[in-house]
Amino acid sequence: MSENNWKTGITKVKPNELRLKGYRVDELMGNVSFGQVVYLALKGELPSENVGKIINAIFVSSIDHGVTPPSALAAMTVASTGAPLNAAVASGILAISRFHGGAIEDCMGVLLQTNEKHEFRKISIEQAATEIVDEYKQTGRRISGFGHRIHTQDPRTVKLFQLVEDLKIGGNFIKVAQTVESALTKQTGKKLPINVDGAIAAVLCELDFSPKLANAFFMIARVPGLVAHIYEEQTRQKPMRVIEPKNYEYDGPIDRSL
Amino acid sequence: MSENNWKTGITKVKPNELRLKGYRVDELMGNVSFGQVVYLALKGELPSENVGKIINAIFVSSIDHGVTPPSALAAMTVASTGAPLNAAVASGILAISRFHGGAIEDCMGVLLQTNEKHEFRKISIEQAATEIVDEYKQTGRRISGFGHRIHTQDPRTVKLFQLVEDLKIGGNFIKVAQTVESALTKQTGKKLPINVDGAIAAVLCELDFSPKLANAFFMIARVPGLVAHIYEEQTRQKPMRVIEPKNYEYDGPIDRSL
Amino acid sequence: MSENNWKTGITKVKPNELRLKGYRVDELMGNVSFGQVVYLALKGELPSENVGKIINAIFVSSIDHGVTPPSALAAMTVASTGAPLNAAVASGILAISRFHGGAIEDCMGVLLQTNEKHEFRKISIEQAATEIVDEYKQTGRRISGFGHRIHTQDPRTVKLFQLVEDLKIGGNFIKVAQTVESALTKQTGKKLPINVDGAIAAVLCELDFSPKLANAFFMIARVPGLVAHIYEEQTRQKPMRVIEPKNYEYDGPIDRSL
Amino acid sequence: MSENNWKTGITKVKPNELRLKGYRVDELMGNVSFGQVVYLALKGELPSENVGKIINAIFVSSIDHGVTPPSALAAMTVASTGAPLNAAVASGILAISRFHGGAIEDCMGVLLQTNEKHEFRKISIEQAATEIVDEYKQTGRRISGFGHRIHTQDPRTVKLFQLVEDLKIGGNFIKVAQTVESALTKQTGKKLPINVDGAIAAVLCELDFSPKLANAFFMIARVPGLVAHIYEEQTRQKPMRVIEPKNYEYDGPIDRSL
Repeated sequence: MSENNWKTGITKVKPNELRLKGYRVDELMGNVSFGQVVYLALKGELPSENVGKIINAIFVSSIDHGVTPPSALAAMTVASTGAPLNAAVASGILAISRFHGGAIEDCMGVLLQTNEKHEFRKISIEQAATEIVDEYKQTGRRISGFGHRIHTQDPRTVKLFQLVEDLKIGGNFIKVAQTVESALTKQTGKKLPINVDGAIAAVLCELDFSPKLANAFFMIARVPGLVAHIYEEQTRQKPMRVIEPKNYEYDGPIDRSL
Repeated sequence: MSENNWKTGITKVKPNELRLKGYRVDELMGNVSFGQVVYLALKGELPSENVGKIINAIFVSSIDHGVTPPSALAAMTVASTGAPLNAAVASGILAISRFHGGAIEDCMGVLLQTNEKHEFRKISIEQAATEIVDEYKQTGRRISGFGHRIHTQDPRTVKLFQLVEDLKIGGNFIKVAQTVESALTKQTGKKLPINVDGAIAAVLCELDFSPKLANAFFMIARVPGLVAHIYEEQTRQKPMRVIEPKNYEYDGPIDRSL
Repeated sequence: MSENNWKTGITKVKPNELRLKGYRVDELMGNVSFGQVVYLALKGELPSENVGKIINAIFVSSIDHGVTPPSALAAMTVASTGAPLNAAVASGILAISRFHGGAIEDCMGVLLQTNEKHEFRKISIEQAATEIVDEYKQTGRRISGFGHRIHTQDPRTVKLFQLVEDLKIGGNFIKVAQTVESALTKQTGKKLPINVDGAIAAVLCELDFSPKLANAFFMIARVPGLVAHIYEEQTRQKPMRVIEPKNYEYDGPIDRSL
Repeated sequence: MSENNWKTGITKVKPNELRLKGYRVDELMGNVSFGQVVYLALKGELPSENVGKIINAIFVSSIDHGVTPPSALAAMTVASTGAPLNAAVASGILAISRFHGGAIEDCMGVLLQTNEKHEFRKISIEQAATEIVDEYKQTGRRISGFGHRIHTQDPRTVKLFQLVEDLKIGGNFIKVAQTVESALTKQTGKKLPINVDGAIAAVLCELDFSPKLANAFFMIARVPGLVAHIYEEQTRQKPMRVIEPKNYEYDGPIDRSL
């Protein structure tokens, strides 16, 4: 058995020196944003400050969605049994799966396929989008990232697209997403607006992330929200209570603005 | 069974309106940092920009520590079986426990007890620290947050304390931590410098977080690092390989500076 | 770094030969019961057939308790997001914690302490039990394993104790448990009958298992039940449904007997 | 919102009465084997005693395979951080995935397809098996359940097939599996004997279980083995040790027979 039989390209650890993708971690601290460092860890290069800002905005957009998502319910349920914080977080993470969070990855696939048709076959985005929504319909697949159980116009989508413009991130995939939205409206006769998952998908395509990493952005964003729900369960509720997912009311701070 | 039989104070969800602790999430996006929003989610109020910066610095400090921590090994091991990303992350999260990450919570306890002695009994921090390290020794407990297997002078500690000063966060608990360090040196006759866990503990005490939330900061910070290792396992390695935790070498980007 | 720097005493793997605690696994197959092999794995020796039968009875007793325990809810919640079977099982396992399943371990502690008082101080079991329930009351701790939200006379307790007698397992800890039950009744003025957790605790004490392994018996028993709920969720329900833990009804096979 | 808006067909809970698929749990205890009750929970009917015996034999066959499988390593790694038993078990469960344990499900697919070809197209099993191995080769897929890293003649396969014969379970799918083995030998020119996963697959096909439940059998079987490794880690090893998956030796009981 030889020494050093496998390789890793992420972090180099030496006594009193810790480097992530070549950069000293202590140099990164305070000088670049968390969003930039996450990008660095996953893609190997430090992005511009503006790219860091859009990633931070993605994290903020998805930090929490109340007590009804399965990730929050799974985390609270485990917390109610007296489990430690990390076990409850892990349970929440296990619920961030195909139908919860998974829409980002699925939607990235749709947007990438649409753009590929457009680029390689030199057809308009409109035509490419129409073909894609038809193909999905014919094969009985649902196009993820459009429509929402609760929000008809997701304010997070509006803001994320505005930030992409303000920060000059490049909006090709925003256009692709909006064109798919139009094609869906034409096909179905009803409005299925881009939801926050679809909006994040468009931004992650723009930033050239692999769809296989899409779920990571949702998980990184949501862990603090899960922690908040777990801590609330631990400090406000009795162990082993029956958690009824509809019979609750909000009693937190009243509406306010920055 | 009555309606609305339990309460939550974190997030309010209405059609086209999502509010975290009273603030519209779309208003938070792009306007405040991820660190500020995590603080908001966990403590209920938006902190200053500087507090957000120190929290971001904590996240950056702990984003990864290479392939040897148990959280990375557990995550990679699960990834090597073909499990999905979130399952591998959950496994890593389950390893962030008493002896890995847990030092932050334990150290916060030490610092809070020391400060309490100092304030309530009106004795000097030096005397309080000496008493605490003696009490721990007598009861056979280890004081966490000091000393490191690899780093004799953790560069992340130095930087974090520098940022606390630069950002005017208030340094009472930094002083407490440094005084405990001195007391430990006197007691043991050897240098046990504050490590990154101890440094984070001091900052979280300063920000008045409950020790019960300490582990959350480590988890939020480390999820991106876990994702990076999982993705590397999925894309560079064969399934079911034997992961030998010592026989690896780093082949990532060479040393570089901002 | 030397070869073979750690040891394991459980399973020996050679080409075409697999031995658990010294016995060929293929020889164990078909010749001894699962309960006996679990005992072998955890304690290192093959127990009598009757001990195997009582362990099997423990597993059967705790295989399921419907859809309301947190382990079932956590597992179903994760399953509803499209997660794979093992992720949903893992989530259920994470809910088998201090307040759900944990009663077995806690109760074993009570029974062992009572018996120790009885044996070492040569006082009657009655006196020892009275002292223990008083000590718990004075320190504000609850005695686990007695009383049940739903069952006033748990039929599983009755049967398990009957089997202990029929199989001649030895009933010292059954007597201890029954004496603690009496002491609790005297102290509180109400009937707090031994529940299935308390009954299992008594049997595991009798079999000389460490309380640290108590939870293992509950987990081994409950995994099939979790699988049944997950599979039902996957095959009968729509993804992402809201699981209301009270608003269900049973529509399985009607009451029947062996 | 109406009452009772969903249904479950597994367990009925009434005060002092607990029924699994219609049978009183206390009546099942001591009267039927754990294997029979698992079958009852998953398929809704009590099987014969012999079917219970073959299921018990499956559980015994897969209870453990030493310290090198990823499930054992993930569980031990998490245990080494001071995590509770159930968190370490959950981590091990998360490693029972596509490439570890998943072979049973994949192999069931192969056997069911082969048998379907044989029955519906009225061709011989030999011809059906030859077509299947050819189809898999042409589409670049691996046929799971044949060959083993360590065992050239898996003793557990031999014993399981012997038990199927002795217990008169019905051997159609054993024959299918053996015919696929022959076809693979012809195709590849090398011996790829049915391994324990393939053998279990054949038995589960014979018992008419859905392939979607295959992994459940492996998990139920392996939880006790995981517990044994976790408990060994907790009681024999120091926290946070580096677990080198090759450098260990077995120091348990010496070879012995029933």
